[in-house]
Amino acid sequence: MEFSNRISSLKPSAIREILKMPNDPDLISFAAGNPAPDSFPVDAMKKIAANIFETKAASALQYGVSEGYTPLRDITKERMGKKHNVFKEETDDLIITSGGQQAIEMTAKILLNEGDSVICEDPAFVGALNALRSYGVNLVGVPVDNDGMLMDVLEEKLKTEKNIKLIYTIPTFQNPTGTTMSLSRRKKLLELAEKYDVMVLEDSPYFELRFRGEPVPTIKSLDEKGRVIFCGSYSKILSPGIRIGFACASKEIISKLTVAKQVSDVHTNLFFQMLAAEYLKENDIDEHIAKICDIYRVKLDKMLECIEKAFTKKVSFTRPEGGLFVSCTMPDGFDGAELTNRAKAAKVAIVPGCTFAADDTKIYPTFRLNFSLPSLDEIERGIDRLAKVLNEYVG
Amino acid sequence: MEFSNRISSLKPSAIREILKMPNDPDLISFAAGNPAPDSFPVDAMKKIAANIFETKAASALQYGVSEGYTPLRDITKERMGKKHNVFKEETDDLIITSGGQQAIEMTAKILLNEGDSVICEDPAFVGALNALRSYGVNLVGVPVDNDGMLMDVLEEKLKTEKNIKLIYTIPTFQNPTGTTMSLSRRKKLLELAEKYDVMVLEDSPYFELRFRGEPVPTIKSLDEKGRVIFCGSYSKILSPGIRIGFACASKEIISKLTVAKQVSDVHTNLFFQMLAAEYLKENDIDEHIAKICDIYRVKLDKMLECIEKAFTKKVSFTRPEGGLFVSCTMPDGFDGAELTNRAKAAKVAIVPGCTFAADDTKIYPTFRLNFSLPSLDEIERGIDRLAKVLNEYVG
Repeated sequence: MEFSNRISSLKPSAIREILKMPNDPDLISFAAGNPAPDSFPVDAMKKIAANIFETKAASALQYGVSEGYTPLRDITKERMGKKHNVFKEETDDLIITSGGQQAIEMTAKILLNEGDSVICEDPAFVGALNALRSYGVNLVGVPVDNDGMLMDVLEEKLKTEKNIKLIYTIPTFQNPTGTTMSLSRRKKLLELAEKYDVMVLEDSPYFELRFRGEPVPTIKSLDEKGRVIFCGSYSKILSPGIRIGFACASKEIISKLTVAKQVSDVHTNLFFQMLAAEYLKENDIDEHIAKICDIYRVKLDKMLECIEKAFTKKVSFTRPEGGLFVSCTMPDGFDGAELTNRAKAAKVAIVPGCTFAADDTKIYPTFRLNFSLPSLDEIERGIDRLAKVLNEYVG
Repeated sequence: MEFSNRISSLKPSAIREILKMPNDPDLISFAAGNPAPDSFPVDAMKKIAANIFETKAASALQYGVSEGYTPLRDITKERMGKKHNVFKEETDDLIITSGGQQAIEMTAKILLNEGDSVICEDPAFVGALNALRSYGVNLVGVPVDNDGMLMDVLEEKLKTEKNIKLIYTIPTFQNPTGTTMSLSRRKKLLELAEKYDVMVLEDSPYFELRFRGEPVPTIKSLDEKGRVIFCGSYSKILSPGIRIGFACASKEIISKLTVAKQVSDVHTNLFFQMLAAEYLKENDIDEHIAKICDIYRVKLDKMLECIEKAFTKKVSFTRPEGGLFVSCTMPDGFDGAELTNRAKAAKVAIVPGCTFAADDTKIYPTFRLNFSLPSLDEIERGIDRLAKVLNEYVG
């Protein structure tokens, strides 16, 4: 038996594997990308679920349409339109997906042939990189600084690399770096996409989780030519376990994504689409997001404070204004994977930088820390443990 | 902008489009593949949902592992092992998927390269055909009779067609024909798969819905060489809206499917995986299935009785022992698509045979009727309407 070319070389995600680590009660994990459980609106969801079972179980448990539950689509369109200018009534459509991940995977499926190339931030979200790899495309990494992708390198790649069809980016609170692309670079990216005739996949699962600083317009909101596919998610503002995300793009793109969705999983869990729609109707989601930001701001500040106090000065780190992650960099020559092993022995889970690399065979001196899931106490103790490991390794 | 080759020619499923027909209260639909809403165990599910919100909301709403929720995997393994000999402890593994559809789509993704060929029953389930088409593979149809795929044609195709990698089959209560492959043909199919070194995808969403007659062993249960991937589903015995299915195959296959699952939607809705596991633990699912069969047996018998009474004798039809569908055949030269249009005007929805054809550009004198969703009264009135349309069209 042989597997397909596209899948033969694909490795399981290191992060998903880390999530399976034995439930050692003494292990402190900064590895996941999980929201804090106290950010889930459990009581409200519980009431709505009971009501759905009471009043419309027959339709909630039946097959639905592939585009998604209409009231959820409508309320998402309205919010993404009015609040963020991401959805444009006249030109756009919106499909509900099984998490933001599915929007990325299906975008790869409908746009890319094997052998095509995709530009991504280097480093970037491994789930997206693997989704792209699973369609046999080449990844072309563009380095990032504190203002996002480097535009001169981006243009150089667009000029010289062959068959580039798509730019993949998380412009806001990027995974893993936590950095945000500046407005001027967003405009430049769109301009380059137009000039070199490539599409843009704007992946924005965290963009509403801003703890401080001014919001930067999404790339999609700046796009007048239908070049941008915007992937959003309810995972970080409602619950990831329910697997509800969405893609917003031109009507033509959404109609192809709908065909891909039909053959992929027919439709997303209908009960929770109804529940999410009801939740969004009955509650002020912005107020809920503000509460989540209050929780995360304190955790981030605690983590940065602990890092500043305890880490060797040879290690630098990002200071994100939102999202879920802080990224740290050791001096050149040190290996994030080696540090990860040593940290594991000291009962701290982190994710090595190589996980997020377009070329995942190289050595990277970086590692990612998640601050949304651990408690304040765990952050303090975990950073302390990690500081000791770093002192031994980096000196 | 260009779409990928694999997706450019793919059409939306006619059935999914039919499901979107305006909610005309006077329309009688035999078009869907929906279970009867009174087959959903609403009260039990409602209680379990309340309990999950009460006692383990934090984990039910959090990210889970891609393989699926362990207790649901375990209980499914046990049932599929003990009761059906589909799961074999020593050699097999099992993954929870977002409906049976996803198991099919991911199997195509991990096994097939563009340009490979797949043998399918002709006619066959359009959702599977489109999933296969969406990976750029060629479909090679093998006709079926009342005992399933014709084995001499199957061997001829295996001998003469190039790059055949997979045989796709619904051996039990096939969609759309309703027929069941005989035991001897199942054995022959496995023998041929071995001889010509191809894999087998056994899609069995209905196999437990047997209303009469003796069960026939699944192909997977006869397989000793790890050639068969078995796709099962909780859609027809619990609820389709919750999107829970599974694939059972060799450990090697399941490990590749898990990688595909990671990049596809990370994992299936965890809350309903927990709910399903709890339901299966607390309830006798076989008793529940027996109740569903009681409902459907009456509906099927009513449909067959009405057809026999009202249809012109020029139309033949299948007499399935289970499942959801009856298939009808007009004399050669008549067109199921034309009949579908005429039926629609008479307010009956049916699905034309061409929908299920490997080559969907030809004319087929067949059409499919679903009996699980309509009420007994709707069956009576709908078949009556359809008989009149047939009388006018076929004479």
